[in-house]
Amino acid sequence: MGAEQDIKLDFQRAERVGLDEAIFCAGKSQDHLAAILDEAARRSAPLLLTRLSVEQVAALPPQHRDVLDHDPLSRTAFFGRPAPLVTEKPNVAVVCAGTSDAAVGREAERTLRFHGQPCTRVTDVGVAGLWRLTERLEELRRHPVLILVAGMDAALATVAGGLVSSVVIGVPTSVGYGVATGGHTALNSMLASCAQGVTVVNIDNGFGAACAALRVLKAMGQRA
Amino acid sequence: MGAEQDIKLDFQRAERVGLDEAIFCAGKSQDHLAAILDEAARRSAPLLLTRLSVEQVAALPPQHRDVLDHDPLSRTAFFGRPAPLVTEKPNVAVVCAGTSDAAVGREAERTLRFHGQPCTRVTDVGVAGLWRLTERLEELRRHPVLILVAGMDAALATVAGGLVSSVVIGVPTSVGYGVATGGHTALNSMLASCAQGVTVVNIDNGFGAACAALRVLKAMGQRA
Amino acid sequence: MGAEQDIKLDFQRAERVGLDEAIFCAGKSQDHLAAILDEAARRSAPLLLTRLSVEQVAALPPQHRDVLDHDPLSRTAFFGRPAPLVTEKPNVAVVCAGTSDAAVGREAERTLRFHGQPCTRVTDVGVAGLWRLTERLEELRRHPVLILVAGMDAALATVAGGLVSSVVIGVPTSVGYGVATGGHTALNSMLASCAQGVTVVNIDNGFGAACAALRVLKAMGQRA
Amino acid sequence: MGAEQDIKLDFQRAERVGLDEAIFCAGKSQDHLAAILDEAARRSAPLLLTRLSVEQVAALPPQHRDVLDHDPLSRTAFFGRPAPLVTEKPNVAVVCAGTSDAAVGREAERTLRFHGQPCTRVTDVGVAGLWRLTERLEELRRHPVLILVAGMDAALATVAGGLVSSVVIGVPTSVGYGVATGGHTALNSMLASCAQGVTVVNIDNGFGAACAALRVLKAMGQRA
Amino acid sequence: MGAEQDIKLDFQRAERVGLDEAIFCAGKSQDHLAAILDEAARRSAPLLLTRLSVEQVAALPPQHRDVLDHDPLSRTAFFGRPAPLVTEKPNVAVVCAGTSDAAVGREAERTLRFHGQPCTRVTDVGVAGLWRLTERLEELRRHPVLILVAGMDAALATVAGGLVSSVVIGVPTSVGYGVATGGHTALNSMLASCAQGVTVVNIDNGFGAACAALRVLKAMGQRA
Amino acid sequence: MGAEQDIKLDFQRAERVGLDEAIFCAGKSQDHLAAILDEAARRSAPLLLTRLSVEQVAALPPQHRDVLDHDPLSRTAFFGRPAPLVTEKPNVAVVCAGTSDAAVGREAERTLRFHGQPCTRVTDVGVAGLWRLTERLEELRRHPVLILVAGMDAALATVAGGLVSSVVIGVPTSVGYGVATGGHTALNSMLASCAQGVTVVNIDNGFGAACAALRVLKAMGQRA
Amino acid sequence: MGAEQDIKLDFQRAERVGLDEAIFCAGKSQDHLAAILDEAARRSAPLLLTRLSVEQVAALPPQHRDVLDHDPLSRTAFFGRPAPLVTEKPNVAVVCAGTSDAAVGREAERTLRFHGQPCTRVTDVGVAGLWRLTERLEELRRHPVLILVAGMDAALATVAGGLVSSVVIGVPTSVGYGVATGGHTALNSMLASCAQGVTVVNIDNGFGAACAALRVLKAMGQRA
Amino acid sequence: MGAEQDIKLDFQRAERVGLDEAIFCAGKSQDHLAAILDEAARRSAPLLLTRLSVEQVAALPPQHRDVLDHDPLSRTAFFGRPAPLVTEKPNVAVVCAGTSDAAVGREAERTLRFHGQPCTRVTDVGVAGLWRLTERLEELRRHPVLILVAGMDAALATVAGGLVSSVVIGVPTSVGYGVATGGHTALNSMLASCAQGVTVVNIDNGFGAACAALRVLKAMGQRA
Repeated sequence: MGAEQDIKLDFQRAERVGLDEAIFCAGKSQDHLAAILDEAARRSAPLLLTRLSVEQVAALPPQHRDVLDHDPLSRTAFFGRPAPLVTEKPNVAVVCAGTSDAAVGREAERTLRFHGQPCTRVTDVGVAGLWRLTERLEELRRHPVLILVAGMDAALATVAGGLVSSVVIGVPTSVGYGVATGGHTALNSMLASCAQGVTVVNIDNGFGAACAALRVLKAMGQRA
Repeated sequence: MGAEQDIKLDFQRAERVGLDEAIFCAGKSQDHLAAILDEAARRSAPLLLTRLSVEQVAALPPQHRDVLDHDPLSRTAFFGRPAPLVTEKPNVAVVCAGTSDAAVGREAERTLRFHGQPCTRVTDVGVAGLWRLTERLEELRRHPVLILVAGMDAALATVAGGLVSSVVIGVPTSVGYGVATGGHTALNSMLASCAQGVTVVNIDNGFGAACAALRVLKAMGQRA
Repeated sequence: MGAEQDIKLDFQRAERVGLDEAIFCAGKSQDHLAAILDEAARRSAPLLLTRLSVEQVAALPPQHRDVLDHDPLSRTAFFGRPAPLVTEKPNVAVVCAGTSDAAVGREAERTLRFHGQPCTRVTDVGVAGLWRLTERLEELRRHPVLILVAGMDAALATVAGGLVSSVVIGVPTSVGYGVATGGHTALNSMLASCAQGVTVVNIDNGFGAACAALRVLKAMGQRA
Repeated sequence: MGAEQDIKLDFQRAERVGLDEAIFCAGKSQDHLAAILDEAARRSAPLLLTRLSVEQVAALPPQHRDVLDHDPLSRTAFFGRPAPLVTEKPNVAVVCAGTSDAAVGREAERTLRFHGQPCTRVTDVGVAGLWRLTERLEELRRHPVLILVAGMDAALATVAGGLVSSVVIGVPTSVGYGVATGGHTALNSMLASCAQGVTVVNIDNGFGAACAALRVLKAMGQRA
Repeated sequence: MGAEQDIKLDFQRAERVGLDEAIFCAGKSQDHLAAILDEAARRSAPLLLTRLSVEQVAALPPQHRDVLDHDPLSRTAFFGRPAPLVTEKPNVAVVCAGTSDAAVGREAERTLRFHGQPCTRVTDVGVAGLWRLTERLEELRRHPVLILVAGMDAALATVAGGLVSSVVIGVPTSVGYGVATGGHTALNSMLASCAQGVTVVNIDNGFGAACAALRVLKAMGQRA
Repeated sequence: MGAEQDIKLDFQRAERVGLDEAIFCAGKSQDHLAAILDEAARRSAPLLLTRLSVEQVAALPPQHRDVLDHDPLSRTAFFGRPAPLVTEKPNVAVVCAGTSDAAVGREAERTLRFHGQPCTRVTDVGVAGLWRLTERLEELRRHPVLILVAGMDAALATVAGGLVSSVVIGVPTSVGYGVATGGHTALNSMLASCAQGVTVVNIDNGFGAACAALRVLKAMGQRA
Repeated sequence: MGAEQDIKLDFQRAERVGLDEAIFCAGKSQDHLAAILDEAARRSAPLLLTRLSVEQVAALPPQHRDVLDHDPLSRTAFFGRPAPLVTEKPNVAVVCAGTSDAAVGREAERTLRFHGQPCTRVTDVGVAGLWRLTERLEELRRHPVLILVAGMDAALATVAGGLVSSVVIGVPTSVGYGVATGGHTALNSMLASCAQGVTVVNIDNGFGAACAALRVLKAMGQRA
Repeated sequence: MGAEQDIKLDFQRAERVGLDEAIFCAGKSQDHLAAILDEAARRSAPLLLTRLSVEQVAALPPQHRDVLDHDPLSRTAFFGRPAPLVTEKPNVAVVCAGTSDAAVGREAERTLRFHGQPCTRVTDVGVAGLWRLTERLEELRRHPVLILVAGMDAALATVAGGLVSSVVIGVPTSVGYGVATGGHTALNSMLASCAQGVTVVNIDNGFGAACAALRVLKAMGQRA
């Protein structure tokens, strides 16, 4: 029995949850990846792939590889065409504390784009140099949803969360060494944030933060 | 120098963040608590107090104790009058997996109420008895925001998160023993949830979940 | 003194415990692996090898390598012939939450097969898309033993455990990132499961779950 | 609204899972406990209560307190009559490594009894004094299911698991100090056991181990 | 043999390290405490006692109890007279993020005072309400040494550390619940701070932070 | 069935291991404690009890309580007479870094005494005041076995271990706060000691360290 | 949009904090590294780069690579000229317990040098061989600031901290295996040090320790 | 300044501690390794090197590489001649639970050999197959010192420790996966062992166990 029997895509998800199924590719065998794309191609269903490495892309069958829009920094790929942009004016800002957080921020950005949403990207505004955040503050306040991406001490979440009334979704990153290794310090720091009403997703989970933002946009009537 | 010099309440918070300051009372000395209430009384500012134990209430000066609306289950108190209800129809449902989670759920409910928001309370719908959740599903789907409160394995977050398109805010609880002690298993389980776009707050943080919901309601235009 | 003096195979195990000794190959030197297979060949004893990498297979002496039935996905090998199938109708179902869990599920399947037991394989039925599980529910209920393989939040264990009266053995997997890294969240979630009577084995231990199932089959009189 | 609206007992569980719902009482408010017993009394449904402290019993309404069969050592109570014994000959042995583990072992014993199953109790047979186990070995082998209760190093699980072909369910206990505090060492030791096919439940979870045993007895045809 | 043989005070410490020995009282028996004070009285050596609870004070022999200057909030006591103030103008500011951190801040303040150093106390300036810190910024910059006391996310360390050129010593506190319990999140957040050159002491260690400040003052020539 | 059926004392231990069985009393029920002493009295076997609190002693039956030699600091008791001293000259020195470690050191001392061995007690020689250790160094070197008891950073183990050729057994203690809480830092510091050949026992395990010393004395021919 | 929009260097830092911004290179993409150096070159601003691997250097554009002063052991690089030495006589001593700690010590040394400060280097003076430290003690005491670099048990911090009155900054290193893996034992040991007033930075953070030393030198008036 | 200034070998150690200094090579730079061997060659001092990989050996200067006696399994090397064997009859037995533990056992064996001590090697006697240990029991009892090497559950330590009166030194190994990863389960299991007087060294520290054994042999008068 082949790999295809191990595949059961949840194509009903968009209808139920308002979000398309996405494929988490890390650790999947090449046989399983190919079977998934076969199934998506058969249904002409566009698919978002996350944590897809350059090596995995290179090992895909050519007919699949050639139609992928793959971004190496974020390790995301669009299989098939993403949804058309529903608006010009971004409702979401993706804010990264440091350049090292940009890969995770890009995953959020790409997930939003796949669902037809633009976003504003703001990078390298960590609060050890506070002026970098405050000079962008008015701009950020105009976005109903902020995705804050930060590693190490993740102090950005508390400072920004205490300055805006927007929905705030924190994404801790695994950037760093020593006690910062793996992102648990950033995660716990965000969870223990003194700023009220900051929510958090898993470490490095730019995808999940974007999905949470998309749920908010739906509640706001900005999405079908 | 007295305890009052250690107090600096952030009365500008409502304007900046859209949420009133709240006082986390666990571990505060009685002198500090009294000084905080003195200051709030002086400004005629209503105040939400969290983690306020029955013992702490009993030790307050009578003039403060007598005007508190204290709820022992959730350990919350309203000092002064909460905001009037802005609507009859609740936009938020607070869903508890088990009766043991009800204290945390009540903290969320009371925080919403303090800010003038009603909510629907649904308790004891853990997914080990799946029918309890599914029979309430249509009702839950009508709420744009769900606060899911669960301890132990916190499987409720994944199952409910995969069945609705609402905004989903998970609150892990410290209910349980062995590996569940302290709520870290529930927290991690929610963070690692396979349901897309579930966000999470700190363990037992019903207050924070309500604040996050209030941010969403503001983005939806349901609050000023 | 050579590697052979470091080897003492427990060939009495089948008689005592009802299960054949198996060789855990990760971290064993090539000299030790060769000495083990020499000893098994000398006794004409069939042997199950687990965690045997493609690289380790390639470095074996040809006389051993050529008679191995090695499965790369599960990293298991049969040395010598496995027991004949004792029945057509499977008593065990191996249920994987996601495709990424299939390697661990296959280890369980291969261990059952080595001992002469067929099984039903059900993959990609994670409860974030609940219908995938419920549509297979009646079929699953007909198996006296379920092996549930899941990573991340491992919510499958609680949902399935609450829907069937079969023996339920959970296998957490190390699939995932952030708090899911290494499988501890899945493990703890299964241990803290609200479903009554779910038992658990070590992370990624498909082999152990199959052995536990074989002990149950023996108690049921389905094995000698 | 009263505590009764927070209660939704899963009286369908016996039919679905073959096990009665049980009430985990630690951390429940007295109002909730009373509401649960009210509901059970109304339905004339017998109920097993676990982690019910002497203080909680004392604070119950007299009409409930007086009909409870409460065992202080295991903190379990029968509300209403347990099922009649279905057999004289025990299929399950509950084996405790030390006297300090007896409270957890008793929880298993009481859970089995509530469901109509007798068991053999064997205590103080830790393997630091190996003869205590080996002199009971033949007796233990006659039981198709062994529940092994041990704290500290939990070496009993490996030694006994390697000597019998019965189903083996390990219950780590929180007995001990230093690295043994809380039972995590015993838990991990059982999960990492070199004996094949040992399954494990949460720390101090005698109830869960008994439920797992009851699932096996059902598969064996020893229960309806 | 009595308790006095277990006592060997390091009265040479002041000469060697420039700091007086202090007695950590938590967990010491009353016999040992009394023997220590006997010895200090015999030598007429003033002594700083830390973590000395109200209960321990009450159980001391009257001749010792009556000459103690005990501060219940910080649990510190001066036995004998502290050094005279060496200056009017404080070189150290003790900055607490919240009122709940005041007990730890007071321990630092009292330790400085015991060694003859005044300090500036600034409390309740957590960065979730940023204006509270920035309005004190110029004042803080005039102190060559800042002791920053904060629990939860401890974001104060990064923000303040990025705004001043003073020596910055962070003291994480155990204030909080969930992931903040015990202070490990605050500790790790300070250690991973993006602000350059922030140093850290143990959780709740106001005493140690003051000692570190005293070492700096000595290097600055502000102490003998 | 009574508590006595849960008791199986290992009276063969002395013959097999050269050490008498000892009873770890923490967490044992009063019924179990009484049954153990009944059994020992019946056999006229002296017994060492550890972690026996003042409250447990008070609740014992008078006939047992009155013949106990109980030491509150170490929570040890001799039931029956300990072995006569086999020598005047101690082979073991019990060295405590601080007075707070004296309770654990006393447990070691009492265990040695129960088995007929004297020891030298040296307390309050922590290496933050190095001279306190070095002035006792020649004396310590004359003991073939050193038991080093230390909490916090446990640096004593490395310094002393690097200065003597004796057998060195480290006992980490749970003294301290913050990262020292529970003794894991002291434990890990001793395990990672740069001094060669330092061995370690569980946190606060003065009893175990003494037993290890007794094994060495037996190997040296200083015991039967 | 290119990588340059993700870069916002904090060139105001020197003025605000008295320390130049440094670039943490681990995990940064080559595009981001090149954009940073472009910006620094455009401003003619010298830059310190840390955690810059040999591979990253090799992949830089030649115009940047050729002007780097890269030190492979410490993985630091100077881009542009470091500040001129402000003094001949070092105020800081960098003391490493073992040769394996030398890479971290070198990072501190290079950071000091970049800011114009010389230092004394003392290596391989771990306290398991105490004479190696004591023979250098007088020399060390002449430095107002000591940076102590140690892995494993990090006992050096306590011993040296108890012998000098200088400012002591501890840097735990990740050297070692078993419980020492990753440096958490060394970190915790330093935080729990019995020597008063020892401060600590993150594991392997030689850079941060040097920055802390530079803050002290500024307070001492040894820097502008 | 070259690598040689970072080297300060402790050649006085043998005299002080009775053990030769050994060089822990993991993580040392090639320059440092070469400088260490230069120094040893200059003094004609034999040296034991541990954790020396095949790659490190290959990169040594030929004059050093050619005189090394390197054992790849244990990663140990003798530089210069080890001490002559002092006896034919081994006083120490090195007992490994599984073949995967043999590398660590060999490190102990080689360290003993370097110091002139023979040992008995017993491998693959894990207690999941109890007969393998018991058939060697009489032989083991004749050794005054047992080094027990085991990973996973490390139950060997408890069973063997309860059967012999010899000195017992446990070495946990990092063999295994899931909860066994890194050896912490084995370490904790040994520390929490119910067998009295078992001492433990760091994970995978065969070298340290041998050094501890050598200290015992010295106390026994079997070494100078």
